Amino acid sequence: MIIDCHGHYTTAPQALEDWRNAQVAALGNPSAGPKPSDLKISDDELRESVETNQLRLMNERGLDMTIFSPRASFMAHHIGDFETSSTWAAICNELCYRVAQLFPDRFIGAAMLPQSPGVDPKSCIPEIERCINEYGFVGINLNPDPSGGHWKEPPLTDRHWYPIYEKMVELDIPAMIHVSTSCNACFHSTGAHYLNADTTAFMQLLQGDLFKDFPELRFVIPHGGGAVPYHWGRFRGLADMMKKPMLDQHLMNNIYFDTCVYHQPGIDLLTDVIDTKNVLFASEMIGAVRGIDPQTGHYFDDTKRYIEAADLTDDQRYQIYEGNARRVFPCLDATLKKQGR
Amino acid sequence: MIIDCHGHYTTAPQALEDWRNAQVAALGNPSAGPKPSDLKISDDELRESVETNQLRLMNERGLDMTIFSPRASFMAHHIGDFETSSTWAAICNELCYRVAQLFPDRFIGAAMLPQSPGVDPKSCIPEIERCINEYGFVGINLNPDPSGGHWKEPPLTDRHWYPIYEKMVELDIPAMIHVSTSCNACFHSTGAHYLNADTTAFMQLLQGDLFKDFPELRFVIPHGGGAVPYHWGRFRGLADMMKKPMLDQHLMNNIYFDTCVYHQPGIDLLTDVIDTKNVLFASEMIGAVRGIDPQTGHYFDDTKRYIEAADLTDDQRYQIYEGNARRVFPCLDATLKKQGR
Repeated sequence: MIIDCHGHYTTAPQALEDWRNAQVAALGNPSAGPKPSDLKISDDELRESVETNQLRLMNERGLDMTIFSPRASFMAHHIGDFETSSTWAAICNELCYRVAQLFPDRFIGAAMLPQSPGVDPKSCIPEIERCINEYGFVGINLNPDPSGGHWKEPPLTDRHWYPIYEKMVELDIPAMIHVSTSCNACFHSTGAHYLNADTTAFMQLLQGDLFKDFPELRFVIPHGGGAVPYHWGRFRGLADMMKKPMLDQHLMNNIYFDTCVYHQPGIDLLTDVIDTKNVLFASEMIGAVRGIDPQTGHYFDDTKRYIEAADLTDDQRYQIYEGNARRVFPCLDATLKKQGR
Repeated sequence: MIIDCHGHYTTAPQALEDWRNAQVAALGNPSAGPKPSDLKISDDELRESVETNQLRLMNERGLDMTIFSPRASFMAHHIGDFETSSTWAAICNELCYRVAQLFPDRFIGAAMLPQSPGVDPKSCIPEIERCINEYGFVGINLNPDPSGGHWKEPPLTDRHWYPIYEKMVELDIPAMIHVSTSCNACFHSTGAHYLNADTTAFMQLLQGDLFKDFPELRFVIPHGGGAVPYHWGRFRGLADMMKKPMLDQHLMNNIYFDTCVYHQPGIDLLTDVIDTKNVLFASEMIGAVRGIDPQTGHYFDDTKRYIEAADLTDDQRYQIYEGNARRVFPCLDATLKKQGR
């Protein structure tokens, strides 16, 4: 099996964006805004939006299952207040749930959280419980910077975030650390803010001792870990200077990098430097980079090609494609087993 | 010759830090603060601070010349106002000048700028002119985020920065894009903020068309280009999606990455993915990572070892060690030629 642990519903019908625009337009005056029930998207529309896009590419590339979450750049937690995010997250998660219901052997959900800058993360717990317990989702996306590029929340090691971690441990789910769109003109969202957030999160975890408090906590750092594997020597050296344990003990029982790195040399470095047990297959498809690489004639985000060409044993490929995902996402493993897979 | 294009005076005598602390303590009341003339550091002290540190390691490693600038993390442009930064930059640059005078065949200066958040960069011109014309410096360090991790200035492509670019072109000097310490708790300075700034700067330049206005402008992006070479496919794909020219035409006549990547696989990727003409030897020594790698028994920042072991021809190594630096820093080349080198 090939499990893509990082897909977003970037191709939802236009009605979703229209609803969001109406919500944003009514920010000062929510009673004038749209109700969740105003959003009408039929199963046929959902089906088509996926069949012509993600599912088509999954079939072309031979991917079996995608962990599917709401469009990251549309989370935009910086807009409005907690109520704004709460309504919006509920809508977006429900759509992913419906897609997973329509294609239960191809998609399974991961939840967007109703985060809002400065709001206690505890407020996200009901949505987490609903998504995991009622929708059968298998993970969450946690935004370390709900301000959208201004970085005003405390680091991920701060007790501020502990209510979410406690719930993650209780439900045995991992979080992908994933920011949303940048509203800081310095940071291009997918070209800078996403990668910076990955690097930042890793370094926050390196500075702290979070996994002493939560030995079972698991984070997926997407986009190949940002700058981290390329600078692995720097991070090993910083851990040493900061008198932290070696990275394999300090962090690498709890942190995983996905394979959203869109060229062969990057994947070669990732799989060379990072233990196979810490690498999860993903393509973030359809996402940041949608074109065809003129150097190869294939989609930049067809990351399976790079994994196939990397210097890996069959067992290592099995771990990256399937084994690690089953271990990091136990709820996924349980669902797959129920499906006889 | 081996030219290290990225060294900082991180080992200045304690008197410098004491002076700065006194300056900061008197921020509200500058007349109570220290005068530049209160700082007394003898030539012998300067000599010793370098002979026992940078120069010793340069000799051990076989490095001939270092482009030497004030300690990056101490620039701290976010502290005080323009006058604060102006006095501090003048002091720090003068010390680098004195080191270069003491060891003219081993060190040559690059200038810290008296940047201050929200202040017109034009205010940096006199210090640039002084350092280049009077001190014989060969480049500048430009901080894209003088706020220290809050990212409040416009992107590097904004006309805000043009006065500095015009002066750079006039004097035929490059800028290294280098932030200073982070005062945002989210960002560890050397483990996140530095790398993020490198990635951010590259993406800002990718989004814009700055080099149409300044075809001769040259930037060195340090720390191996942050996350950029590792994600080169992503950036090629983003340029494609944004209808920009291919990166080799759009950016790579004007942007250079240094080799401050502290393990062999990272250097292998850098030299594999990025054209040799765009790679400059550097170690940022003595800098962020000062320890010995237990995996190799050598200093993490002994980047010459990685370049020696990389799959490069003798001519490529010559370019990375010397040729490119002479081309990117023409004032360095001129000085070396005057020295008969």
